[in-house]
Amino acid sequence: MSLIAFEQNKRLEKQINFIIEIDKVKNVIRKSLLFDGSRFENVAEHSWTVSIMAILLKEYANFKVDIEKVLFMLLIHDIVEVDAGDTFLYSDERKNAHFNEQRAAERIFGILDPDQKKMFIDTWKEYEEGKTNEAKFALVFDRLQPITQNYVCKGITWKKHNVTYEQVVEENKCIKEGSEEIWSFVEYILQKSVEKGYLAKNQPPREGNK
Amino acid sequence: MSLIAFEQNKRLEKQINFIIEIDKVKNVIRKSLLFDGSRFENVAEHSWTVSIMAILLKEYANFKVDIEKVLFMLLIHDIVEVDAGDTFLYSDERKNAHFNEQRAAERIFGILDPDQKKMFIDTWKEYEEGKTNEAKFALVFDRLQPITQNYVCKGITWKKHNVTYEQVVEENKCIKEGSEEIWSFVEYILQKSVEKGYLAKNQPPREGNK
Repeated sequence: MSLIAFEQNKRLEKQINFIIEIDKVKNVIRKSLLFDGSRFENVAEHSWTVSIMAILLKEYANFKVDIEKVLFMLLIHDIVEVDAGDTFLYSDERKNAHFNEQRAAERIFGILDPDQKKMFIDTWKEYEEGKTNEAKFALVFDRLQPITQNYVCKGITWKKHNVTYEQVVEENKCIKEGSEEIWSFVEYILQKSVEKGYLAKNQPPREGNK
Repeated sequence: MSLIAFEQNKRLEKQINFIIEIDKVKNVIRKSLLFDGSRFENVAEHSWTVSIMAILLKEYANFKVDIEKVLFMLLIHDIVEVDAGDTFLYSDERKNAHFNEQRAAERIFGILDPDQKKMFIDTWKEYEEGKTNEAKFALVFDRLQPITQNYVCKGITWKKHNVTYEQVVEENKCIKEGSEEIWSFVEYILQKSVEKGYLAKNQPPREGNK
């Protein structure tokens, strides 16, 4: 359904209806709390924070990056969650997410004219594949933000989902590929999180394993 | 209060604490509803939408623009509202807002090291002054979004605050300076809004004026 009709410029009509469609990410709720712990964050808010992080922390990139491209990636990286929903990094559902996200990208970016659909899908895929400098650097912030939120909020989300230090390191060591400096910071706060009891060092032994 | 201490890199410590501080805009509520009308939007969500608009609609700029600069402006343009609050475009409080916002910029961007404080304040001021191509083009989206939201939500906010067609045109004709094409679209939806009864053509006559 097109909410806005604009006969004079059908391309602009599609662009405005795309903006209205992607507004739905404001109702897609993530697993992490705002820094003040008051409520869970939504995808639009997350995308705003990671975009500002990229501008603010660009001096720490391991290599030269095109920040405009990094911002484009970060602003759109989770739009597919309008259809596919948010999946938790440490859960099994991540494995099935790819197919749903691909289909969502086709539908949502498909609201646009073919040239813009291609530009948005290509940029989203480049981010997802994680091979270029821009994709590696963008990923740093997608990972840095929830870790920092968890630290500030005393590990509430980690505890709730029984996430361990080993899992966090395993799933986030990709940060080092984009920024050694930011990885040092993450190592530091993960260490502190273990010391303060926000993050379990190891999985609790299962029944019968004793 | 610094929420995170990181002795190894005091500059990065300030940067992370800045990110935590500006997270407060997620609790600064604007006067416009989300496109689905379900609730009022916050400043982080607004900033995300206008940033995507700038990428999506850059082909309509009246002149050549540096989109990276436009994105920087749009991502940070309302951070001062952490202290200064959101002010309604059509209200008298806008006149007093400047002093409060200036003071807020000093405090909030002052969390950063002097070089970054300067870069953020200079970019924010450039946007506020509205003289450069980038500032004019960024302003297009800050104004386009609430008008489109109001149209889709059948003029709820305009009606609530007794805003008239003349006021909307007067306060938003600056859009034309950044993009003739987008101004044509805005003129079209304002016309439609009057036809559909979402927006009053004129102020109702005051008591005693008859």
